[in-house]
Amino acid sequence: MGKDKKLVEAITSMETDFAQWYTDVVKKAELIDYSSVKGCMVIKPAGYAIWENIQQELDRRFKETGVENVYMPMFIPESLLQKEKDHVEGFAPEVAWVTHGGLNPLQERLCVRPTSETLFCDFYANDIQSYRDLPKCYNQWCSVVRWEKETRPFLRSREFLWQEGHTAHATAEDAEERTLMMLNLYADFCEEVLAIPVIRGRKTDKEKFAGAEATYTIEALMHDGKALQSGTSHNFGDGFAKAFGIQYTDKDNKLQYIHQTSWGMSTRLIGGIIMVHGDDSGLVLPPKIAPVQVMVIPIQQHKEGVLEKAGGLKDTLKAAGIRVKMDDSEKSPGWKFAEQEMRGIPIRMELGPKDIEARTCVLVRRDTREKTVCALEDVASTVATLLDTIQNDMFARAKAHRDSHITDVVSYQELKDAVEHKPGFIRAMWCGDEACELKIKEDTTATSRCLPFGDHEAISDVCVCCQKPAHKLVYWGKAY
Amino acid sequence: MGKDKKLVEAITSMETDFAQWYTDVVKKAELIDYSSVKGCMVIKPAGYAIWENIQQELDRRFKETGVENVYMPMFIPESLLQKEKDHVEGFAPEVAWVTHGGLNPLQERLCVRPTSETLFCDFYANDIQSYRDLPKCYNQWCSVVRWEKETRPFLRSREFLWQEGHTAHATAEDAEERTLMMLNLYADFCEEVLAIPVIRGRKTDKEKFAGAEATYTIEALMHDGKALQSGTSHNFGDGFAKAFGIQYTDKDNKLQYIHQTSWGMSTRLIGGIIMVHGDDSGLVLPPKIAPVQVMVIPIQQHKEGVLEKAGGLKDTLKAAGIRVKMDDSEKSPGWKFAEQEMRGIPIRMELGPKDIEARTCVLVRRDTREKTVCALEDVASTVATLLDTIQNDMFARAKAHRDSHITDVVSYQELKDAVEHKPGFIRAMWCGDEACELKIKEDTTATSRCLPFGDHEAISDVCVCCQKPAHKLVYWGKAY
Repeated sequence: MGKDKKLVEAITSMETDFAQWYTDVVKKAELIDYSSVKGCMVIKPAGYAIWENIQQELDRRFKETGVENVYMPMFIPESLLQKEKDHVEGFAPEVAWVTHGGLNPLQERLCVRPTSETLFCDFYANDIQSYRDLPKCYNQWCSVVRWEKETRPFLRSREFLWQEGHTAHATAEDAEERTLMMLNLYADFCEEVLAIPVIRGRKTDKEKFAGAEATYTIEALMHDGKALQSGTSHNFGDGFAKAFGIQYTDKDNKLQYIHQTSWGMSTRLIGGIIMVHGDDSGLVLPPKIAPVQVMVIPIQQHKEGVLEKAGGLKDTLKAAGIRVKMDDSEKSPGWKFAEQEMRGIPIRMELGPKDIEARTCVLVRRDTREKTVCALEDVASTVATLLDTIQNDMFARAKAHRDSHITDVVSYQELKDAVEHKPGFIRAMWCGDEACELKIKEDTTATSRCLPFGDHEAISDVCVCCQKPAHKLVYWGKAY
Repeated sequence: MGKDKKLVEAITSMETDFAQWYTDVVKKAELIDYSSVKGCMVIKPAGYAIWENIQQELDRRFKETGVENVYMPMFIPESLLQKEKDHVEGFAPEVAWVTHGGLNPLQERLCVRPTSETLFCDFYANDIQSYRDLPKCYNQWCSVVRWEKETRPFLRSREFLWQEGHTAHATAEDAEERTLMMLNLYADFCEEVLAIPVIRGRKTDKEKFAGAEATYTIEALMHDGKALQSGTSHNFGDGFAKAFGIQYTDKDNKLQYIHQTSWGMSTRLIGGIIMVHGDDSGLVLPPKIAPVQVMVIPIQQHKEGVLEKAGGLKDTLKAAGIRVKMDDSEKSPGWKFAEQEMRGIPIRMELGPKDIEARTCVLVRRDTREKTVCALEDVASTVATLLDTIQNDMFARAKAHRDSHITDVVSYQELKDAVEHKPGFIRAMWCGDEACELKIKEDTTATSRCLPFGDHEAISDVCVCCQKPAHKLVYWGKAY
C-alpha cells in the first residue's frame, strides 16, 4: 500500500511551485529516479518507453531523407578535441576526463564525448576523397556527457541521451539546404507528434553553437512561460574542414573543402512534453507518443463476466493497432484512475456490470476529463477517432497558450516590465549589436531565443535597448 | 575509381591467413573503420545496419517475455563498484577511470561502466520494497568499456555495444528459470536468425562471470575451428542482494533477499556472422539479418527500357516486404557483382535486354553462387522462397561444419593432438578439479567452453587430465 499511496498523494500544484510540480511529476509518474552519480538519472520503463517512441518516429523520418546510422567511439583524445579553436573553447570547461585505463595512466587523456563533431571530422578526413563520396548523411543515437553544475531531470543532466546527425557536402548550398531540412523535420515532428508548437528561427552569434557558422533552433513555450530550446541544426560551412584538413577532388580534379552540418535532439524533449501538456494531476501524454494509449479499468471486476468482457475489449483495441493495457490488479478503481491520470495515459476505459448490460463502456479523456459513453460494437473506431481528437486538441491548446503569451515591446521599460510580469515570449527589435544582447540578459535574465524565419512586420524601427536603427525582430525570453 | 578498385581487389584467402582474411572483410565490406582512439572502432552504415536488425529482433523477443527497457548512468562511483568483492576483482583491472569533471578533480573517481550490475543493484535497493514489486525484468541497450590490451574489430574492443538484462526475483527458482529462459532465447535467436548453431551449456566455476553463482553460455564454432562465446546468462543467487542490502517484505511480512540474474549479447555477434558464414569473396549474410537482401543489377543499363524495368522489379520486391536496392551507378556490372559479393548481399538479380525480351531475370545466390532463371511474373514469390532456402541452407551448412569438427578424446595425449591438429570442439571427461582445467589451458591453450545441457553418453569414466573418476562431459576449444 505504501507505494500506491505515494502515487496518488496530491502533487504540488503548478501555481504553488512550478519547479516542484515538475519534480513531483517526473518522480510520481515513474519516469526517472535519481542515482548515486550526482547529476545522472535512471530512466525508468515509463520514461524510456517515451524515448523509444521518439527514437522510432525520428529515425524513420531521418531515413526517409537518406540518413544512415553509424556509431563513433565515446572517447575523444584531447588533441583531437583541440583542433577547432571555437569548439574546444565551448566544450572543454564542461567535459569529463578519463585519465586511467585499468591500472595505468593514459599517455593522452580522453574526454567522454560532449558531442562528436571532432570524431566525425577525423573519420571524414580518411573516408572522403572524391565528389562521388558526397554527400555523407550520418547519424548516431548515443549518450553524451556535459559536466553541468546545476542539473534537472531531462532538462539538464550530466549524461543525456540524444541523436546527433553529422553530414558532409560538396557545396555551401548543399550544407545550408540540409541544415534547414533537418530543422524543419524537427519542427514538424514536435508539432505533429509531440503536439508542441515551436518557433523556427536562427540563433544570434552569441547564442550559436561553438564552431558553427549558423545555428538554427526551434523554441517551445512551457506552461510557466519559459522557453525550451528543443532542437538545433548547425551549418559549419568549411570551418571544421579547414581545421581537420577534409578535402575532396571535384569533377575537375581540383581539391575542395567539404561543407558540414550537425543537428541534434535529446531526452530534453521529454521535459518539454511534461511542461507543455502536464497538469495538477500529473503527466498528460499526446496519444502519438504515449507508450500506453488506453488503460482499460474494470469496475466491480469480481462480478461474473466483467474481467472477461474487459479483456475482450482490450484485445479488440490491440487488434486495431491501439496501444492498450488493462489494470486488473486488486487496487480500487479510484486508485487506478489516479495512477492512470498521473501517468498521462490519454484514454481511460471504464467497464462494469451495468455497462455490460447496456452494451456500452465509458471513455474518459485524460486531457479534458470529458466522459463519453461508447457502444461496445463501435469501440475500436470510437477510440481511434478520440485519440486523433485528443492529439489535435492538445496541439491547439498548446498553440493558443503559446500565442496568448507573446508580448510585443518597443521601449526598454516595457521590455523589463514584460520579463517581470508577463511570462512568455517577448518580441522586440534589435540592432544586431552583441552589447545590447548582453545588457538585456544582465538586466532581465531574458536571452535572445531566435530571429524567427519568414517576414515579420517590424514592431518598431529602433533597437529596444540602444534605440539605434534596428531591422531584426527577435524573440526573447527566460529559458530552461 | 580508386575506391572501387580497393573494394574488389582480392582479399587474403581464409586458408592463407584467417586473421588477415577477417580484417580484410570487416574493412572491405565497409563494416568498420579504425579510429584515433586506440582499440575503439567506428561502426560504418553497413555494419551498424546489421546491429540495428539484431537489436530489433532481440528487443521484440525480450519484450514478449515481459522485459522492459530502462537506462542507467554510464558512470559508476568507485565505492559502488567495490561493494561486491568478486565482481570488483573481476572488473577493476580493466576499467577506464574518470578523474576530472570540467576543470576540477572529482572527489571520488568514476569508472565508465564495464557492465552495470552495481548500478542496477543500487537502483533496486531503493525501488524494491514488497513482493508486489517483483519480478523486475529490465534491460538496457548501451555501450560499455573494458580496457583490453589486444583488440580486434567486433570481437574484442575497448568500447562495444551490447544489451544487458538485469532481473530481480522473489525466489531462487524464479531467478534460475529466467536465467535459462534468456539463454534459450539467445540460442534460438542465433540459430533461427543468424543461422549460427550453438552449444548450450554451463560455464565451469573458473570461467563464470565475476560475482555469479552460475553462468550459462552459448558457444559457436567459427570457420577456423575456434570457439566464440556468443551470449551469456548469469544467475547471481542472492550474492549481490546481500552485498547491496536489497530486501523485500514477503506475504508474511518477513524480510527476504531478492535473487538476481543478468544476461548480455553484443556486437561480437557480428564477428560471429563473419567467421561462420564468410568466404574468400567476403561477407555472406543470412537473409533474415541482411540489411539489403536483394541487389538488382541492370545489365546494359543504357539500353532503352532496362533501368525502367529493373526499377519496376525493385518496387515489386519492396512492396512484397523484401529489403532491396538497385545499383544503377556507372560502374561496370563486374564491379557491381564483386561489391555485392563483398558485402554479403544474399541475392543478386541481373536483368538485361535479353532477359526482358524473354520475360525473365537471373537470380544468383551469394552463398552457393547458384544461378536460376526466374519468370518476371513470379519474381516476388520466387525471391521470397529463395531467401528462405538460403537461410535454411546456411544454417545446415554451418551445423554440418560444426558437427564435423567435434573430436572426442579419452587420453591426455589424444587431447593434445586434437588441439594441435583437429580444429574444432573437443569433448572430454573432466573430474571437476580446477587444477586439471588450468593444466589443460597451460599445456594446450584450449579452455573449457561449457558443460553441455542434457544427457550425454559418457566418453570415458575418468578425467582426460588426471585419470581420476569423472562424470562431467566438457566441450574444450581454443576461443576468441
